[in-house]
Order: sequence, then structure tokens, then C-alpha cells
Amino acid sequence: MFDDLDVVITEVALRDGSHAVRHSFTEEQVRNVVGALDAAKVPYIEVSHGDGLGGSTLQYGMSKVDEFKLIQAAVETASYSKIAVLLLPGIGTVHELKRARELGASLVRVATHVTEADVSRQHIEEARKMGLTTFGFLMMAHMAPLDKLIEQAKLMESYGAEAVYMTDSAGTMLPDQVFERIAALKSELSIEVGFHAHNNLGLAMGNTLAAIKAGATRIDGSIRALGAGAGNTQTEVLVAALDKMGIKTGIDLYKIMDAAEDVVAPLLLTPQEITKDSLTMGYAGVYSSFRLHAQRAGEKYGIDPRDILIELGREKVVGGQEDMIIDVAKRMKQERG
Amino acid sequence: MFDDLDVVITEVALRDGSHAVRHSFTEEQVRNVVGALDAAKVPYIEVSHGDGLGGSTLQYGMSKVDEFKLIQAAVETASYSKIAVLLLPGIGTVHELKRARELGASLVRVATHVTEADVSRQHIEEARKMGLTTFGFLMMAHMAPLDKLIEQAKLMESYGAEAVYMTDSAGTMLPDQVFERIAALKSELSIEVGFHAHNNLGLAMGNTLAAIKAGATRIDGSIRALGAGAGNTQTEVLVAALDKMGIKTGIDLYKIMDAAEDVVAPLLLTPQEITKDSLTMGYAGVYSSFRLHAQRAGEKYGIDPRDILIELGREKVVGGQEDMIIDVAKRMKQERG
Repeated sequence: MFDDLDVVITEVALRDGSHAVRHSFTEEQVRNVVGALDAAKVPYIEVSHGDGLGGSTLQYGMSKVDEFKLIQAAVETASYSKIAVLLLPGIGTVHELKRARELGASLVRVATHVTEADVSRQHIEEARKMGLTTFGFLMMAHMAPLDKLIEQAKLMESYGAEAVYMTDSAGTMLPDQVFERIAALKSELSIEVGFHAHNNLGLAMGNTLAAIKAGATRIDGSIRALGAGAGNTQTEVLVAALDKMGIKTGIDLYKIMDAAEDVVAPLLLTPQEITKDSLTMGYAGVYSSFRLHAQRAGEKYGIDPRDILIELGREKVVGGQEDMIIDVAKRMKQERG
Repeated sequence: MFDDLDVVITEVALRDGSHAVRHSFTEEQVRNVVGALDAAKVPYIEVSHGDGLGGSTLQYGMSKVDEFKLIQAAVETASYSKIAVLLLPGIGTVHELKRARELGASLVRVATHVTEADVSRQHIEEARKMGLTTFGFLMMAHMAPLDKLIEQAKLMESYGAEAVYMTDSAGTMLPDQVFERIAALKSELSIEVGFHAHNNLGLAMGNTLAAIKAGATRIDGSIRALGAGAGNTQTEVLVAALDKMGIKTGIDLYKIMDAAEDVVAPLLLTPQEITKDSLTMGYAGVYSSFRLHAQRAGEKYGIDPRDILIELGREKVVGGQEDMIIDVAKRMKQERG
């Protein structure tokens, strides 16, 4: 599938962008966006709650419309494009994956924190048995040293993943770092390597070109940068840049530009600029879910929340450890006397 | 001056951003922005009409407030920062430069099209005589082959320029290309080399890091990306990225982030996203002034204006040759039968 392309793009606006619209996508919106992406010949379109299948919960944010209805609308609308889903073991289950498969999804990306690939085994194996194209997705990849990243990617490969993505979830990586890591993954793995960027440091595009130069052949984009934080690599801009470089994506440049302007731009609740908040997340290299906690802790202890976030990044605090934020703020207050 | 810094940043929002606000800056806005930038210890702040001194004309757009009043307000407000002006020979004159100097401007950048450095001789020589720090600024640098670029930069050096900037006016260059060209300029010149980016292909930041890696030590940024087209390298984001890399700009990260969010963001008339228009300019590598002409010609001859702009880029049509746009459209129509 898509073997004639140099780089195979997965459009993530209908999944990563779900965060940016507070999980409010409707079937009509999905039909319109998928219709425009399909006409532009985008290979894969990911449709899921922002936190993957089963993410519609009080904790992660309730979806306005059941994601399976959205997946079904996407499958019914697409004729060229294949529909992908995201699955985070622990949030989504094999049961939900099966349902997505029955509705016609073709690809799943099984996503774990960069040091927790071992929890993806069952899901990758079951996905392969269902006949899904199955990729691994290592999130917050900047938090692991290179050897750990390689080890975890190899685990996913050993479970049956047909490609592994390095995911810069916080938009905190730099081009040389991306190049080094993707090149290492390419030389250590026998499967394809992918890259997923965020634009918090303005480097989504620069990092993506570095990844492609290092050998990545699977790239995520979000049209009009409709993704979490400062958005992802902007799909139509990436298509234009790769076209200039003679790298074949199979995507029609004019049609994807028109889709961005006419179909997707009106869906944005706020413009995709790099704001103080998104820049702080990228600089600190932390989860966006830490922001409000750090703000509250900062007020309580009289510390700039940015100082707290930077310290959390330094200590590599991960999602689910939000309780630690108050402890870190308290300790910083004590250290400052 | 600023010898202890690794990279010396010039903030261009009050000059390049003049385009984005239709030359409507007021003295109060300039005082507020310069005050915030000065507090953050930004080395240079450029204040001029978007097209440089003397640009306030019917052709280039009338300034709401006389630029000399804005320069004066900037000089009066700054205590750490130095005030810079831009001069395009043919638009601005030595007379205007003298006036800016008398008001307290410290730096001038004398800007020409990349193949027309010879017209900068008188202005560079006179600026040096006035005691101004004097740099050359080669615009639309992608339009010249590398040897031509070097030749033109050497001309500016020979006239007395103390640094030369490569300017990616259309935001059309790619990181490898920027690296190659800056490295070549570094090795061929004995003065400092600078880089000025635009974000039309999402690469302002990626290209700027490539330029710094190749040896550029003078970099332009626009806070909150307040610049023409898709904006420039976003100053506060650049400061954050360079800080992560251990490259010293002397700028206070928190203060520049706060200035962007609290002082500059409210000035933007439209958000700095990469739109269909700005992407088209970056992809084609043409002047933004061509856009309306291409739209009209496209309607008249039934051709997608993007096809016309791409052809204009291919033929390296330059500013002032807008008359050719209708000829190009006509010929394309004939060729298509």
C-alpha cells in the first residue's frame, strides 16, 4: 500500500486536533474534512478521540459525538484514503479496536510512553491478527536516552509492529537531536521509522525535514496545524516543502491547500499560534496537562509556574504523576528560603 | 557592542511588522513595545516603515504616524536596546538616514535586491561617515546562485558594511540550502554574517537554526511573529530554543515571553498562521506584491493564480516588473490552447 510514495503521510487533525476543539467533532465535520482530504489523496486519515480509542471519559474529556460514529462517517466518505485509529493501552482496549476494525479502519497505531513499550504487546499482536496494518508510537520520546529509545522501539518491532514512530509529544526536540535519533532507529530496526512533531518551539517543520533526511518514511501532519498545543507539522505546508524537494507524497498540493483554507480553518476555535502557554510546554518538555496544576501550585507557593514546569521537565515527571507537582513546588519554595 | 553574546538578535516587529498592521503603528504602541523589549534586553530594535525609511508613499502604503516620530519615541524609551533603521536605496535617501541618526538611531541596514548590491555603495559609505553601525541586507537571496550571492555580499563588504545578512524575503528557502549558503558566506567574508527568515514554508525557525549552525551570528526575529507574510522567526521562541542549546542571546526568556503575550499579541490585526496566500508566496518564491496582480490576471485568462505565481518564481521576475504578470498569464493561456 502506497509503495510508490517516498513519504507516507498520516493526517491527524481528526485525532490530535480533537484536543484543540475540545472533542467536539461532529459527523458532518468529519465527512467534510475526510471528503476534502480524500480528494487530495491523503494516504491515511486518523480518526479517534484525542487520547485514542476509549478516551471519551471525564478524565480526558467527553466526546460530543461517539468516536465510532465518527470513524464510520470517515470510512463511508473515503474512497482513496485509509482510515487509521490511535490506541493507548490502558485507555482503549482490544474490544474497541475490534469495533473500529469492523467499521472499516485499516491502520492502528498502538501508543505508549517512550519507556513503556512492553504494555503494547497484546494490542499489537491482536491488531495484527485482525488484519490491521499495525504501527508502534513512542510518545514523549525526548524523555528517554537514545539507547532506551532503541530498546523500546525494538520491543514494538518484536511484537509485530510494521513501523515505529518517534513522537515529540511536547514539541521540545531540536533538529540535530531528531536527525541523530531517527538515523539510529533506522539503522537498528528493519521496519519503517516514522516521526510525529509538535510546533511548540516552532520546529515542527524543521524537525520533520531532519527526520526525513535521516530516513523516516512515515510522517504525521495536521492540516492547518489543527492539533494539540501549538499544533503539528502543518500538512499542506509539508506537502509544499516536500514537493519543492522532489520528495513524493502523492498528495495534490492545490487540493490540500484549498481543504486547509476552506474546510478546516473555519473549524479552529483559536488560531494556531505559538502562545506563552504552548512555548512554555515546549521549552520545559512536559505534558500540557501539567499546566493548570503548575499554575495552582505557583499561586499557592509564590513561584512562577514556568519555574515549576521547567523543574518537572528536568525531573522527567510523566503523566499520571500530577500529585508530584505540589511536592515539587513546595520543595522549590523551601530551597529558596 | 554586545561582544559577549553568541548571537545578536535584531527585533524587526516594529519594521517588518509594519506591513502586517498596514503601517498603523502609533507612538504609544512603539513606546509600549520598545519598553517591553528593552526590559527583556533585546540588543537591537528596528523601527521604520515596512519598506524602510521613506517608505510611506501611496505606492508602498502611507504610515499613520510619521516614522521619525516613531523612531524618536523608540530612542526615548530604550535604555539598554539600540534603535536600528532599514534603508532601501531608491526608496529612502541619505537625507532621511541623517535625520534618523540625529534622532539617535545607532544601526542602519542598507537593503538591496540580491543582485543589486552596487546601488548600496553611497549609502553604506555615508552611513559609516555618520558613525552608524552599518550592515548590508541582501533581499530575495534565493533568486541568485551561490556565486552571485557571494559576489554581492563581497561588494557590500568592500563598501564598508560591517556585516551582511542573507534575507529569505519570500520564506522559500530550505534548511540545507540556508546552511550551505551561510557557510559559504562565512568562509568568503571577513565580516559577520546574518540571516533574516520568513515562515511561509513553516521553516523560519528551522532555517534560522541551520544558519546559526553554519556560523551566522546576527539573526532577525519578530516577537509573536509580527512580520510580513507568515511572519519571521518568532523572537521569544527563538530565545527559548537557543537557550536550550546553550547559545547566549542575552535576552531574558520570561520577559520576552511576557512581552509577546501581553504587549504584542493584542496589536495583531490577524493571527500569524500560515494561510493559503502566504504558503503560495513561499512555494512560488515571489514577492507578496504579486498576489493581487496574479489574481486579476488569473480571472481574466481563466488560469489558477497559483500557476501564474509559480511561473513568475521560475522566471525570477522581480519587484517593479509587475507589468510582466499579465504577459505571463497570456502566454500560459496560449500555451494551454
